Amino acid sequence: MSDSIKELTEKILAFRDARNWKQFHNPKDMAISISLEAAELLEVFQWSGTDTAVDTEKKLAKVKEELADVLIYALLMGNDLGLDIPEIVSNKIDENNRKYPAEKAYGKADKYTAYAAKGEKSE
Amino acid sequence: MSDSIKELTEKILAFRDARNWKQFHNPKDMAISISLEAAELLEVFQWSGTDTAVDTEKKLAKVKEELADVLIYALLMGNDLGLDIPEIVSNKIDENNRKYPAEKAYGKADKYTAYAAKGEKSE
Amino acid sequence: MSDSIKELTEKILAFRDARNWKQFHNPKDMAISISLEAAELLEVFQWSGTDTAVDTEKKLAKVKEELADVLIYALLMGNDLGLDIPEIVSNKIDENNRKYPAEKAYGKADKYTAYAAKGEKSE
Amino acid sequence: MSDSIKELTEKILAFRDARNWKQFHNPKDMAISISLEAAELLEVFQWSGTDTAVDTEKKLAKVKEELADVLIYALLMGNDLGLDIPEIVSNKIDENNRKYPAEKAYGKADKYTAYAAKGEKSE
Repeated sequence: MSDSIKELTEKILAFRDARNWKQFHNPKDMAISISLEAAELLEVFQWSGTDTAVDTEKKLAKVKEELADVLIYALLMGNDLGLDIPEIVSNKIDENNRKYPAEKAYGKADKYTAYAAKGEKSE
Repeated sequence: MSDSIKELTEKILAFRDARNWKQFHNPKDMAISISLEAAELLEVFQWSGTDTAVDTEKKLAKVKEELADVLIYALLMGNDLGLDIPEIVSNKIDENNRKYPAEKAYGKADKYTAYAAKGEKSE
Repeated sequence: MSDSIKELTEKILAFRDARNWKQFHNPKDMAISISLEAAELLEVFQWSGTDTAVDTEKKLAKVKEELADVLIYALLMGNDLGLDIPEIVSNKIDENNRKYPAEKAYGKADKYTAYAAKGEKSE
Repeated sequence: MSDSIKELTEKILAFRDARNWKQFHNPKDMAISISLEAAELLEVFQWSGTDTAVDTEKKLAKVKEELADVLIYALLMGNDLGLDIPEIVSNKIDENNRKYPAEKAYGKADKYTAYAAKGEKSE
């Protein structure tokens, strides 16, 4: 199977075009849809308490489906807005590199667990 | 810039490894993080009412950042669980092809707007 | 302090009316806002791993604020749609009573942890 | 029907106690659950485009159920953490009063639509 983002996106677009569904895909509803699929992914871990793993076949199957849905909508939204996925991801990593210099952030749990540290919100 | 999912993922992994942050990335917290980034993306459209577009430079800049964050966490979670991204996405499209035959679903707004139709939830 | 839902709602409405903000509060954006505040509440637990508690003053302060925000928007949305909060909550409990008879559901972890059991989704 | 938050909460607690479900209700999973119910509420508006209203009986019925679920989990979480609901809501309104002085914020759409204004995030 191809490893190309472009080819994967074209596969998704072909599915959409065959149904004439682009008309429903405005950016606001796309953002809503990404949130809803993310919630379905999160549902796998509802009531799991301290069990943070994907440790059953059933959970794994569900994660595959819901993670795929998140990616499908994210790639569609990126496509519709004319975004270059590798570029926006690389730019975000570059920004994170500035925000969290490796030598300072190395293995720092508090970097991650200090939930309220506003500057870290979008990491 | 490379269009390869694998190479993009490796770039993200290099960022994480340089900080020794993998230890915090259990699947439950990764799913939480995807949800949180999806919420930050959705925030662009809070109080926009009937304006469903990305119609300012400010909104576009924010969408690029937050969509990148969603993708970064999604690719990391897929990597950590040993998932093949093109495969899980293709499998989901195949499943959707079965659920929504193109000839029946073509241009059907009600297919999309019938929010309560349980069978369509994971589309 | 009064324990009345009506009086608490009136307090929130007075805040809104003093700013003439009702005009922005359409149901779609209110639902978005409840989701965003729920995400800010969830952020308290991002990267907490197996620590599922609210075990610091900092976390507790944040939970108070974000839980209040969820409730503020929920009460506003209910008010704007003319809903009777005690009634819709009681009706939902009655429905749950039918769906989960106490004698069958008693202490059943699987009732809760079987994440994929579709019938339980809206519990 | 009683308008008391305490009595409504007791009704919810009676439902939970009859099933011995408190054991599953740690704060992290409660926050996850509030997010999931908020997502089910938001789903009512998925693909509605510029239609921001609750304009059908079907939508209204769904909103009632999902808004009730959000409130049920929010009241449970507040109860489990020993929070005084009217107090945390009043405190938040007081804080918002300081952040958004009525005379300055009056009818200001930009106050609301400037999505990226960081200081307004938790309003």
